Amino acid sequence: MNTKGNPVIGIVGGMGPQAGLALFNSILCRTNARKDQDHLSVILMSFPGDIGDRTLFLENRQLDNPAFRIAGVIKKLEDAGADLIGIACNTSYSPEIYNVVLEEMKRSGSRAKLLHMPAETCDHLKSHFPGVQRVGVLTTNGTYQSGIYSDLLKSHGYSVIMPPKEFQAGIIHRLIYDEEYGLKANPRHITGEAKIWYEKAMHFFKDHGAEAIILGCTDLTVLVEECGIFGIPVIDSTECMAMALIREACV
Amino acid sequence: MNTKGNPVIGIVGGMGPQAGLALFNSILCRTNARKDQDHLSVILMSFPGDIGDRTLFLENRQLDNPAFRIAGVIKKLEDAGADLIGIACNTSYSPEIYNVVLEEMKRSGSRAKLLHMPAETCDHLKSHFPGVQRVGVLTTNGTYQSGIYSDLLKSHGYSVIMPPKEFQAGIIHRLIYDEEYGLKANPRHITGEAKIWYEKAMHFFKDHGAEAIILGCTDLTVLVEECGIFGIPVIDSTECMAMALIREACV
Repeated sequence: MNTKGNPVIGIVGGMGPQAGLALFNSILCRTNARKDQDHLSVILMSFPGDIGDRTLFLENRQLDNPAFRIAGVIKKLEDAGADLIGIACNTSYSPEIYNVVLEEMKRSGSRAKLLHMPAETCDHLKSHFPGVQRVGVLTTNGTYQSGIYSDLLKSHGYSVIMPPKEFQAGIIHRLIYDEEYGLKANPRHITGEAKIWYEKAMHFFKDHGAEAIILGCTDLTVLVEECGIFGIPVIDSTECMAMALIREACV
Repeated sequence: MNTKGNPVIGIVGGMGPQAGLALFNSILCRTNARKDQDHLSVILMSFPGDIGDRTLFLENRQLDNPAFRIAGVIKKLEDAGADLIGIACNTSYSPEIYNVVLEEMKRSGSRAKLLHMPAETCDHLKSHFPGVQRVGVLTTNGTYQSGIYSDLLKSHGYSVIMPPKEFQAGIIHRLIYDEEYGLKANPRHITGEAKIWYEKAMHFFKDHGAEAIILGCTDLTVLVEECGIFGIPVIDSTECMAMALIREACV
């Protein structure tokens, strides 16, 4: 709570740091405010060097589960006054990580409310695009492998378009992770290579009959306004999480 | 310190919230990183509803000194691990506020290093634009009245261009604060009115022989890339603070 007794939003950032900022920015832009004092209270904690890569863990290429550090940041956020928590990283919601975060929160006696980004994104798709049946998801290799989005979407009756592994790794994951041209390596601008990979990914989903495309990695948020989308609705998980946090903070 | 023993940057945000984000974003964009783990640790605390307006206080239109709440946020940042502190608001560096912040930090036994945004901005001007003599400053009525920038610049031998009070209040302060068209009221976009006020302000300084112009309010940072500047160097206090925080974090 802030000094006026209103809920405080806590963002677990750093995965990547741009994603935490994008989530905060989305909360800010969606708040109806005329002056500083009209805005919501938000704490963003970004410890990118402390938290190991989520996909590397899910691919068994890194032993430490990032869940413990994520739960540590949630504890810090709560100690600083946060009541509502959003993790600005879809891959962290993979069961292997997310379930351990929940266990750690329980163990430490946490009273904060942790929102679920992929679930909020599916809910948004369902309520705002009722006619859609076939859905594509852009995400990291970790989220792809964990099946978090495809399982959720299927449980809601959607047909999910899954790219083949080589396309997922060579185009979509690379768009996010490439250490030369990817989004994580270039916070100042989007490289020409990244734009080409994004367009290839969007073409793939369009060619496979996608009626909506989910940006299921928070690092992709920067692309929404930058690149064309062939008239297919694009649902940005960061925006969905921002709306959910505002909803919960304003009840 | 983060878990690896590296310094953690703490940002006192919320004044306005956009300014805190802009400072964090500037730190991020100026960090040489290929992957998440290469980035600095940053905590941004934004409690806009808790902290009263700085200019209203300096104009005696609000009794509570925002310094106490600012010092409270610094304490929270320190408790969460921050070692280096930047307040993302120039007006907070006015002596009536800043000196009380320092007293409160001393009283609470703070060991954090608080950087001084106007001083960092003047240092940047001096080292990067050695030929400049005449300087204009865009800022809030509070910073204008407190004389923080003009006193600092004069102590460094600069000639400072001060707009008349009516121009300061009716154009420059309004550009920031107007509840309909100002920057604080429109985080999503810059209104046509705001662009006109900004251009009028820049024309004023150009017509009065400015050889450099300081954006001495963190809410103005959004204008840097958006609007033209007649070939006169524009020194953004947010960018100067970001560079100073990175410098201190990387020693």
